[in-house]
Amino acid sequence: MSKKTGSRTIRLENNVCIRSSAGIAGSKEGKGPLGNYFDMIYEDDILGEKTWEKAESRLQANAVEIAVRNTGLDFPDIDGIFAGDLLNQCISSTFALRGLGIPFLGQYGACSTMAQAMLIAAVFIDSGAMERAAAVTSSHFCSAERQFRLPIEYGGQRNLTSQWTVTGAGAAVLEKNAGSVSIADVTIGSIIDMKIKDANNMGAAMAPAAADTISNYFNDTNTKPADYDLILTGDLGFIGSELLYELLQIKGYDISCQHNDCGKLIYDRDPQDVHSGGSGCGCCASVFCSYIMKKLRSGELKNILFAATGALMSPTSSQQGESIPSISHLLHITA
Amino acid sequence: MSKKTGSRTIRLENNVCIRSSAGIAGSKEGKGPLGNYFDMIYEDDILGEKTWEKAESRLQANAVEIAVRNTGLDFPDIDGIFAGDLLNQCISSTFALRGLGIPFLGQYGACSTMAQAMLIAAVFIDSGAMERAAAVTSSHFCSAERQFRLPIEYGGQRNLTSQWTVTGAGAAVLEKNAGSVSIADVTIGSIIDMKIKDANNMGAAMAPAAADTISNYFNDTNTKPADYDLILTGDLGFIGSELLYELLQIKGYDISCQHNDCGKLIYDRDPQDVHSGGSGCGCCASVFCSYIMKKLRSGELKNILFAATGALMSPTSSQQGESIPSISHLLHITA
Repeated sequence: MSKKTGSRTIRLENNVCIRSSAGIAGSKEGKGPLGNYFDMIYEDDILGEKTWEKAESRLQANAVEIAVRNTGLDFPDIDGIFAGDLLNQCISSTFALRGLGIPFLGQYGACSTMAQAMLIAAVFIDSGAMERAAAVTSSHFCSAERQFRLPIEYGGQRNLTSQWTVTGAGAAVLEKNAGSVSIADVTIGSIIDMKIKDANNMGAAMAPAAADTISNYFNDTNTKPADYDLILTGDLGFIGSELLYELLQIKGYDISCQHNDCGKLIYDRDPQDVHSGGSGCGCCASVFCSYIMKKLRSGELKNILFAATGALMSPTSSQQGESIPSISHLLHITA
Repeated sequence: MSKKTGSRTIRLENNVCIRSSAGIAGSKEGKGPLGNYFDMIYEDDILGEKTWEKAESRLQANAVEIAVRNTGLDFPDIDGIFAGDLLNQCISSTFALRGLGIPFLGQYGACSTMAQAMLIAAVFIDSGAMERAAAVTSSHFCSAERQFRLPIEYGGQRNLTSQWTVTGAGAAVLEKNAGSVSIADVTIGSIIDMKIKDANNMGAAMAPAAADTISNYFNDTNTKPADYDLILTGDLGFIGSELLYELLQIKGYDISCQHNDCGKLIYDRDPQDVHSGGSGCGCCASVFCSYIMKKLRSGELKNILFAATGALMSPTSSQQGESIPSISHLLHITA
């Protein structure tokens, strides 16, 4: 492990691999353009549970089960799990994972949680603190709507800048020298607050954090956008992605040829009526752990940046007139 | 860094020190038996802010400021901060720390957050991923009451098994070879759920997690209670502490001579009318970062275990009939 003074980027030196992963999707996501890539699709978003929150927990439990099963190992072989989600007190994670007996360290990075959890897991693996670690997160449209916005039954009109919370989960199992996909570097974000207050335009609130972390990464590693096959953000959606291009142009980087966003990839924008695209912890988690990982494994992608973003507000902070701080954590992944 | 296969305990090998720390307290805590030890006491629990949530953020900001200032360094010298709290979406932390420019990794371990944040920070320091890292958490009686229980104005009668959420915060700065107090080992907890459902008896819900982690630590390190000056739990309170003794007796360990609990230490039980003692992320954070750290620095304590506990439920999970999963993370600290 090494890190230059003043740099935000940590270089992993012991070939930390993503040994296995799984992406789970709800019905709307399953009908979208990535439907063929998910490891499991639920046709009914209640998943046979009694509440949306329990349904979300099940998504997360399934993702971990499939990712671990794909390694040929069992839960006791996992030294630790890093998990979190959007629900108050991260109950999707704690209730999903309580029966597994795996040492647990709860993470909160809002929609950046998948990148954050993999980043910390990667440092634990690289250092030898753990031999094998898992990272998992989830979101569910219905549990998020009722917690952050309005009761679904109310049928409120959605703002055109708003994004659709993905019903989905993603899990990854990390281990040294285990396969062809490696995490080479990680960049930890710091909190950026541009005083944006519109809770219906998360892309605008989060784009400055992505711009900050991505430009810091380029600076720390002395690389440029053209060095990568893909620069993938978490869930900036259509509006946030355009803002990201503008902000990075100001810093001297044009990423428009290499960039894509999980919130743009997961739905067919117009027929699926998602306005500015997908969002939620489960957005980049399900897309990265299925679609992107399959392309890395096949060799179609060889050298990518994955920068997930999170909006660090709550309904209470917005009601108290606060702006929306945001963050972005980045992983440099090679195949 | 080393870890035996099958063990939950990670041995830190590079003299990771707690270079500096600060404990901040509210008025009730300041009038308690540890009043002389806190680094700062607020006489008015609104702290000059407009809301309880903003007041809690200020506690956390103050703790970090004092802990960093005590090192003679400034915020840009800190490579990363690990922080979390009890409020929905951890807003005490994100709003407290958004202006500092320090790379941020949000943690959620409920009342175990101080131990969890120091544990992860210690692994990052030991591995060389960071040179200097901070850990911080907080709680506030009024923000917790209105989020988890009843509006304060309602004046509801408190259950005799209930605990009083501490208004306080604690922060620590970790660095290699920096002072006399070192983190020697860390043990990561796994989630324990004994199907307890009484949200007014958190000590009972959390005691099994503490018993699990502490007994795992003894087993992993082949040590016994008498090897330590102090075995300190986070906020089991009076009832939870008694249950912990019973549970550890069954596993063959008698810790009653070495044990104390931050929730028992922070208040005068009867005159301060706190029923089963203190609780909240800020309970063990403020007690550990002031009182305990001062005793470690003076040499009065030389070899301690610090096992904080957290209840991983939410009001929503309890309303849906769920039990209370809990967790405990442990640090072995030497002076």
